Amino acid sequence: MAASYVLLLLAALLALASSPAMARDPGALQDLCVADNTSNVFVNGFVCKDPKLVKAEDFFFSGLDQPRNTSNKVGSNVTLLNANRIPGLNTLGISMARVDYAPFGLNPPHIHPRATEIQTVLEGSLYVGFVTSNPDNRLVTKVLRKGDVFVFPQGLIHFQFNYGTNKAVALSGLSSQNPGVITIANSVFGSKPAISDDILAKALGVDKKIVDRIQAHF
Amino acid sequence: MAASYVLLLLAALLALASSPAMARDPGALQDLCVADNTSNVFVNGFVCKDPKLVKAEDFFFSGLDQPRNTSNKVGSNVTLLNANRIPGLNTLGISMARVDYAPFGLNPPHIHPRATEIQTVLEGSLYVGFVTSNPDNRLVTKVLRKGDVFVFPQGLIHFQFNYGTNKAVALSGLSSQNPGVITIANSVFGSKPAISDDILAKALGVDKKIVDRIQAHF
Amino acid sequence: MAASYVLLLLAALLALASSPAMARDPGALQDLCVADNTSNVFVNGFVCKDPKLVKAEDFFFSGLDQPRNTSNKVGSNVTLLNANRIPGLNTLGISMARVDYAPFGLNPPHIHPRATEIQTVLEGSLYVGFVTSNPDNRLVTKVLRKGDVFVFPQGLIHFQFNYGTNKAVALSGLSSQNPGVITIANSVFGSKPAISDDILAKALGVDKKIVDRIQAHF
Amino acid sequence: MAASYVLLLLAALLALASSPAMARDPGALQDLCVADNTSNVFVNGFVCKDPKLVKAEDFFFSGLDQPRNTSNKVGSNVTLLNANRIPGLNTLGISMARVDYAPFGLNPPHIHPRATEIQTVLEGSLYVGFVTSNPDNRLVTKVLRKGDVFVFPQGLIHFQFNYGTNKAVALSGLSSQNPGVITIANSVFGSKPAISDDILAKALGVDKKIVDRIQAHF
Amino acid sequence: MAASYVLLLLAALLALASSPAMARDPGALQDLCVADNTSNVFVNGFVCKDPKLVKAEDFFFSGLDQPRNTSNKVGSNVTLLNANRIPGLNTLGISMARVDYAPFGLNPPHIHPRATEIQTVLEGSLYVGFVTSNPDNRLVTKVLRKGDVFVFPQGLIHFQFNYGTNKAVALSGLSSQNPGVITIANSVFGSKPAISDDILAKALGVDKKIVDRIQAHF
Amino acid sequence: MAASYVLLLLAALLALASSPAMARDPGALQDLCVADNTSNVFVNGFVCKDPKLVKAEDFFFSGLDQPRNTSNKVGSNVTLLNANRIPGLNTLGISMARVDYAPFGLNPPHIHPRATEIQTVLEGSLYVGFVTSNPDNRLVTKVLRKGDVFVFPQGLIHFQFNYGTNKAVALSGLSSQNPGVITIANSVFGSKPAISDDILAKALGVDKKIVDRIQAHF
Repeated sequence: MAASYVLLLLAALLALASSPAMARDPGALQDLCVADNTSNVFVNGFVCKDPKLVKAEDFFFSGLDQPRNTSNKVGSNVTLLNANRIPGLNTLGISMARVDYAPFGLNPPHIHPRATEIQTVLEGSLYVGFVTSNPDNRLVTKVLRKGDVFVFPQGLIHFQFNYGTNKAVALSGLSSQNPGVITIANSVFGSKPAISDDILAKALGVDKKIVDRIQAHF
Repeated sequence: MAASYVLLLLAALLALASSPAMARDPGALQDLCVADNTSNVFVNGFVCKDPKLVKAEDFFFSGLDQPRNTSNKVGSNVTLLNANRIPGLNTLGISMARVDYAPFGLNPPHIHPRATEIQTVLEGSLYVGFVTSNPDNRLVTKVLRKGDVFVFPQGLIHFQFNYGTNKAVALSGLSSQNPGVITIANSVFGSKPAISDDILAKALGVDKKIVDRIQAHF
Repeated sequence: MAASYVLLLLAALLALASSPAMARDPGALQDLCVADNTSNVFVNGFVCKDPKLVKAEDFFFSGLDQPRNTSNKVGSNVTLLNANRIPGLNTLGISMARVDYAPFGLNPPHIHPRATEIQTVLEGSLYVGFVTSNPDNRLVTKVLRKGDVFVFPQGLIHFQFNYGTNKAVALSGLSSQNPGVITIANSVFGSKPAISDDILAKALGVDKKIVDRIQAHF
Repeated sequence: MAASYVLLLLAALLALASSPAMARDPGALQDLCVADNTSNVFVNGFVCKDPKLVKAEDFFFSGLDQPRNTSNKVGSNVTLLNANRIPGLNTLGISMARVDYAPFGLNPPHIHPRATEIQTVLEGSLYVGFVTSNPDNRLVTKVLRKGDVFVFPQGLIHFQFNYGTNKAVALSGLSSQNPGVITIANSVFGSKPAISDDILAKALGVDKKIVDRIQAHF
Repeated sequence: MAASYVLLLLAALLALASSPAMARDPGALQDLCVADNTSNVFVNGFVCKDPKLVKAEDFFFSGLDQPRNTSNKVGSNVTLLNANRIPGLNTLGISMARVDYAPFGLNPPHIHPRATEIQTVLEGSLYVGFVTSNPDNRLVTKVLRKGDVFVFPQGLIHFQFNYGTNKAVALSGLSSQNPGVITIANSVFGSKPAISDDILAKALGVDKKIVDRIQAHF
Repeated sequence: MAASYVLLLLAALLALASSPAMARDPGALQDLCVADNTSNVFVNGFVCKDPKLVKAEDFFFSGLDQPRNTSNKVGSNVTLLNANRIPGLNTLGISMARVDYAPFGLNPPHIHPRATEIQTVLEGSLYVGFVTSNPDNRLVTKVLRKGDVFVFPQGLIHFQFNYGTNKAVALSGLSSQNPGVITIANSVFGSKPAISDDILAKALGVDKKIVDRIQAHF
């Protein structure tokens, strides 16, 4: 065990339900507050367009049925429709994503700091899982086939792996207009600038050469 | 105009952005709070299962790819996966729905009092729309084809109509664990007991026989 | 039943408490954030005046005791004091309304997408009610006399009817700085542009001529 | 100035808008969650009655038009309808109050820690005010006559004084199901047990005999 | 008892748990929204700097270990690090404070309208307490020594008194980016302009000369 | 780059401010709701003790000044005072932590899914940092000495490293009653059961032997 959360552990034995967790986008104060992506005023979320200029296209996106290119290192590609992509989502607390998986493609362990994800498989099969927080770090997994649905609770590390020889496609709803994505490996090994290999070697309990080799990959 | 919101209108002319609106599920205070549907303790949302008994199936649903029976009066069928159906969604602020539409099938005007809906068309075409609140009551519409995405802002009346001769299928994310559905016609003309036809005749500006005829349909 | 929410119904039988619902205005981050109705920066709610310019009048409104003109089709008139009318209400999550009812006047079925309403009768008598969401669509009603108080839960269709030969007056508190009003008939039959009569005829189970006749009224 | 918030003051000069503030009740997760006042399970708010047992009376209160007895030391009487009094208000974020004032009656300086109050005068006249937080402690006042409306922002000390020889009556909406009341004098001088007069003498800059005399009054 | 909250009292006897209360800062919609203290656009909280200009210093403060000057009337000094002082705290819902106490120094009765405070003693001893709201006004106290921790629930009047001959130092976390401070004595007796001594005399049950003497102190 | 968030990246270039994010504990609905850790009713947070049984000790913890044992693999030890440890924190949205660092001790990269952390150094020096979310993964670092304060925004990976030969001690406030801790290495390499080395090898771009070696460490 990395850091010795001894007291935390004792407390957790008394109340297993209690570990990390999360919250919700603030509510809307009017019907529509379509993001004005051209504004140079920055606020929590986005400032809105003049309501007189709102049009149907602000709530619209086209082409989510199109397969995405999965020829990258991990063999997966996420198309996230958040309030940056569909400005009408601003203040409304939801987004949608399509994920394409090449054969043996992986959507690598990641976190959505602001959203729970509910995902259904449109095509192919996936082996999926999430890990609960300290001190349990329990891995909860499931094999999903076409038409299956799974929930990845907010803020927990989760992944989807296409363990088969066919491509797979999934569609997700996420409970924020901007769920955010922290791909663990990218954030830990590929930050700009890099986290010192002394630190990562200590965190992982391996020597620095191994850290350096992983960092070189990002 | 039904009730004369004269002053409201004046105010609205000063600030068009401001009309109805809505909010968000309260945030979660632990990783997991899987709904215990067998409890006789009722709270805001659901009480949770003993965390030691949580299992992967609590986050799982199967068969969302299966076509639903649309042989009903309106020719549509909504399969809503909320925290009643997937107990793991409790405290997590999201749900998912599949909607099947027969040719010329209609998901009739309705409201989700607690959720914005983001919907994508998996098959067929839909003519969709929502109406803003008083005093504008602006109808915003769009024709959606396969792969198109549209947003129905929280609390606004909206509908989807399959205007073609093929069936259609759509998939939605909704920003609450229990978005709720108020089908306008069912609530107004089909409540139990019925709303007096005097009242509805006055609200609609028609005579009671017409109201009676509509009520007979529900 | 319009759309066949079969699975939803089954789930609901297991947990009757669960139907539509709603949320709350985001909290304030300072004492005062008086709405600046002259700004051309649009945000969720309103931007604030320079705090140095705040004055007592920003929190004030005069004349709520004055009877309103109820000579309109439905015989009622709502005076809503939201953050458009009293700029000091911005960020504070509440508003107030006075409703005047002519004899046999009706505040027709409507929804406040962002607010619960608590109402007391100052003068006269009212027959009031709200309808719960699908699948129950239960009508809950009460006759209110002077000094009686009733609650209309957030997001549910509700109405007040002055069934007597005297005028009536009521006063309400609403749980949002901008509760919003969706008058059902106006939104369904009087939107701009109109919802197609094909769609409304199907939703109501009547023929298009009846829809056309109702639409002509708005 | 009691405690020397020197740095706070400097910061405040840079951004006057920023002083105390406040938030909102969590949103509802179903149509109705009527408080079950007989339960021995305590939660944030109240547990709900079995939804099958909900009735119209749960949303109802009678007699708010009746004058209250104001023959007490301060000459005022608050009738607060919160979720304790109207169980249907549970989870719904609002309450209502009637206040009766004898001639020269005072609703003494108090705070609602969870609610903004919007108040209208039904009868008589009132001199009302609120005080902003440190470092400004600005007193904002207004004379209200029948039909006038005023807003007391959440968490700020405020009062209403009937400076005339007639009784007065006011009606308020408050933005919480349980706004709470901290009457400053009762809390400071009348707590059980009492706050030490050493402490209060130092806080007020007077000698202990004066504190003792005030405490004797409560 | 100042104002006669008779009905409130009866209700409270049925449900002791219910008294004042409070809420939470709205959630963040992006990683970082560093306050731009130079902007002349005012919003709920602060507008953000251009994200490209964010730097580590925006999240930093130096010198919290330095003793503060406590030579003032009450013998205490609060250094509050809110979003005015550390702009990176904007949208993040927390702040920190250091409090220095001279021998017999008092942090006089005050309220944080938007925050609960959790405090630990770094040096010396403190006698601390908070008072619950009406109708109980229960005083809850504790003597804290070095390493002890105590919680002051949001919106309740509380104080810390250094009853010993050594100085004391405490460190607190507060659950808002701008918790706000209402020092009761300053707000009641030192507002600008002053609250009328008629009103305060009536609220305290003493004659005006005593009020005048206290007001002269602020 | 692990998964190719190409479209996300494009969107992000348009609006750099938008990346992951997070929210807030639901607000309290009464003064006090002290966690009843003995209850077998599980809710979001904790059910409360009978309010009549609340005592000062429910808000109290002792011994936070005591050095903790740091003789573990990473050389650090976190003492987290959340609502499990101080039951009075239930519903109040804050917690506090002490962290002890041996010379060259590391509080390894971790996430608080529900809380921002504000930390001050009581003793020694720390090199601290956080990493923003995709696509920037920007590392923001600072060297902290005694009396320095730093903010770790909610949901972001962060760490503290005692790079010197003396021990260090820090104290933090966290913006949730149960902030949660996901130690990245423990969750990714030490989950129970383990995540398949096929998956981790692909995520890290290294061969399985390296993954196996790291996993063996946990």
